[in-house]
Amino acid sequence: MQLRVPGPTPCPDEVLQSMTKQMINHRGKEFAELIRRVTDKLKVVFQTKEDVLMLGASGTGGLEAAIVNTLSPGDKVLSVSCGVFGERFANIAEQYGAEVKRIQVEWGKAVDPQQVRDALKADPGISTVLVTHNETSTGITNDLSSISAAVKEFDKLLLVDCISGLGSINLPVDEWNCDVVVAGSQKGWMAPPGITMVSVNQRGWEAVSKAKMPRFYFDFTRAKNFMEKGQTPWTPTITTIYALDVGLSLMEKEGPKNIFARHARIGKITREGVKSLGLSLFADEAFASNTVTAVNVPQGVDGKKLNEVLRDEYGIVIAGGQQTLAGKIFRIGHLGWVTEADIEEVLSALKNALPSVGFRNI
Amino acid sequence: MQLRVPGPTPCPDEVLQSMTKQMINHRGKEFAELIRRVTDKLKVVFQTKEDVLMLGASGTGGLEAAIVNTLSPGDKVLSVSCGVFGERFANIAEQYGAEVKRIQVEWGKAVDPQQVRDALKADPGISTVLVTHNETSTGITNDLSSISAAVKEFDKLLLVDCISGLGSINLPVDEWNCDVVVAGSQKGWMAPPGITMVSVNQRGWEAVSKAKMPRFYFDFTRAKNFMEKGQTPWTPTITTIYALDVGLSLMEKEGPKNIFARHARIGKITREGVKSLGLSLFADEAFASNTVTAVNVPQGVDGKKLNEVLRDEYGIVIAGGQQTLAGKIFRIGHLGWVTEADIEEVLSALKNALPSVGFRNI
Repeated sequence: MQLRVPGPTPCPDEVLQSMTKQMINHRGKEFAELIRRVTDKLKVVFQTKEDVLMLGASGTGGLEAAIVNTLSPGDKVLSVSCGVFGERFANIAEQYGAEVKRIQVEWGKAVDPQQVRDALKADPGISTVLVTHNETSTGITNDLSSISAAVKEFDKLLLVDCISGLGSINLPVDEWNCDVVVAGSQKGWMAPPGITMVSVNQRGWEAVSKAKMPRFYFDFTRAKNFMEKGQTPWTPTITTIYALDVGLSLMEKEGPKNIFARHARIGKITREGVKSLGLSLFADEAFASNTVTAVNVPQGVDGKKLNEVLRDEYGIVIAGGQQTLAGKIFRIGHLGWVTEADIEEVLSALKNALPSVGFRNI
Repeated sequence: MQLRVPGPTPCPDEVLQSMTKQMINHRGKEFAELIRRVTDKLKVVFQTKEDVLMLGASGTGGLEAAIVNTLSPGDKVLSVSCGVFGERFANIAEQYGAEVKRIQVEWGKAVDPQQVRDALKADPGISTVLVTHNETSTGITNDLSSISAAVKEFDKLLLVDCISGLGSINLPVDEWNCDVVVAGSQKGWMAPPGITMVSVNQRGWEAVSKAKMPRFYFDFTRAKNFMEKGQTPWTPTITTIYALDVGLSLMEKEGPKNIFARHARIGKITREGVKSLGLSLFADEAFASNTVTAVNVPQGVDGKKLNEVLRDEYGIVIAGGQQTLAGKIFRIGHLGWVTEADIEEVLSALKNALPSVGFRNI
């Protein structure tokens, strides 16, 4: 079975094998060495000299952590949303009492940095901007560098969801002045779910020191204090950290630049491939993500049936659309452990499966 | 290396091997079958016909979930605390704005149910009682059946931390009217950390429907709605669920009654054994836990040094004391995958190690 959803992603055999290692004391020196080693390797991929914390949760837990550690109820927040995950980020902030102003970008389009600039100019009361770098639900990668420049013109706090991008596409966290950035172990890192990795810079820590939203499990300050003695505040997802350790070593070997280039190459092959089958891309191609490709379900085709045929007859698992996009698009994940050959196999299966679910290439 | 801390606990080989299984789509039918099977097996051990949810977090995340899903800021809560984890439960409630009244029991002693009754009589404004069934920091198992009877005399909501007990000691959740009970995968279940399992009964759901504390990642209602379609709201810790599935099958084979009897037998062997070495127990023996034994560090002995010698020379990892008990006690975990022979090995190592760290058995 080839798993081609935008996470969880397949794990190489050495990663899977690493999880057969027995449990260790999470208050002992072996764990301290493990967590320090993994953190050092994470910082290379995050391209940051600042703190990177590991919390025992999915990426959504990381988004919640970013919000509750840096904001207070009543804070005015600008949400720049172009899909399901942008909406989720905004909803979490609202749930904890932030006042959220939304820039709603049409799904399938990227955020225009000028809109961010205009919104910040129009309302100086905004303290913080929430941005999704790589929007998994629509297959868009936003121009984070330009968005960040706009946000920093106004000296605002920038919280970034790059769960489905970091480790696969270039995001130089320090260079782009991203104050808090959230990633997830089950995406480009070739590890299973269980750990969300979050970078926090000096500006981020200043926000933490003033933030009044309630928090306990996700508390950054506790996580940092424990990290300094080689621990986590609560019992961590040890096997996922074993796996991350091995996944990161594989990434170190390939080198971040090569990894980003491979994802760019494979993203392009995927997009060219689906177009050559007579299908159309859902996302604006100028901002198409290199980790996930969203494809319009052609008229007359039952999207759910297509996914079933691909799985049952071709052994390929792809994702459908979420929320209002259910039945309207399908999505091919190509992040982490993925090769050109994997995508060729997906394209070939698609080509053979499409006619059996009503597709006529006119 | 023999890991004898009160969690994470060692995993049998078939559990470790289960985690080499490749990732699957957490929105697909294979995952739906997995989560339903695991939930059914969990209900047998919880001894409940009500809901059992799985959340991607450590036990502390489960405690936070229990609080934020059932309470509103300003609610008056009675905390019955006899150790570090009772304090933690109370601190979480306070952090989210509950008004916490504390019964502080001397560490090493059990909670007196009559004290609970008196406190509830004295203050009818209390809506909820927080209880730690098995207090890992001191090695005490509280008389939860009698505490619950006292709480239910006054018709209050009962939230129970049984993270280090459930699966190892008897806790018939329905029979004892426990409204929310929190467990953790890395304890008696022979699986790694990563999942907290939480039961919620009808009375618990009524509280959820009125609770106003902010929540998103830990939201019970979302978890239940997704569980009904064989999913979790967020990407779950899949490998830990694979492991739980196998651990639960092993537990099913042994049978809960036999598991509880084994833990009782091994608890007794541990206590008798340390006493026969001339050591004294920290906890009131009438309420000694069968999953963890706390032992006083004898005068003249360096507790930290003892743990180091046991680890480095005998390959046995035990735990020290927490907070004010650091250096004053050491703790032997005996829960989950543990046999009489394991404990004999620990006792023999202790016997040999003690003289080298200054112990003189007078």
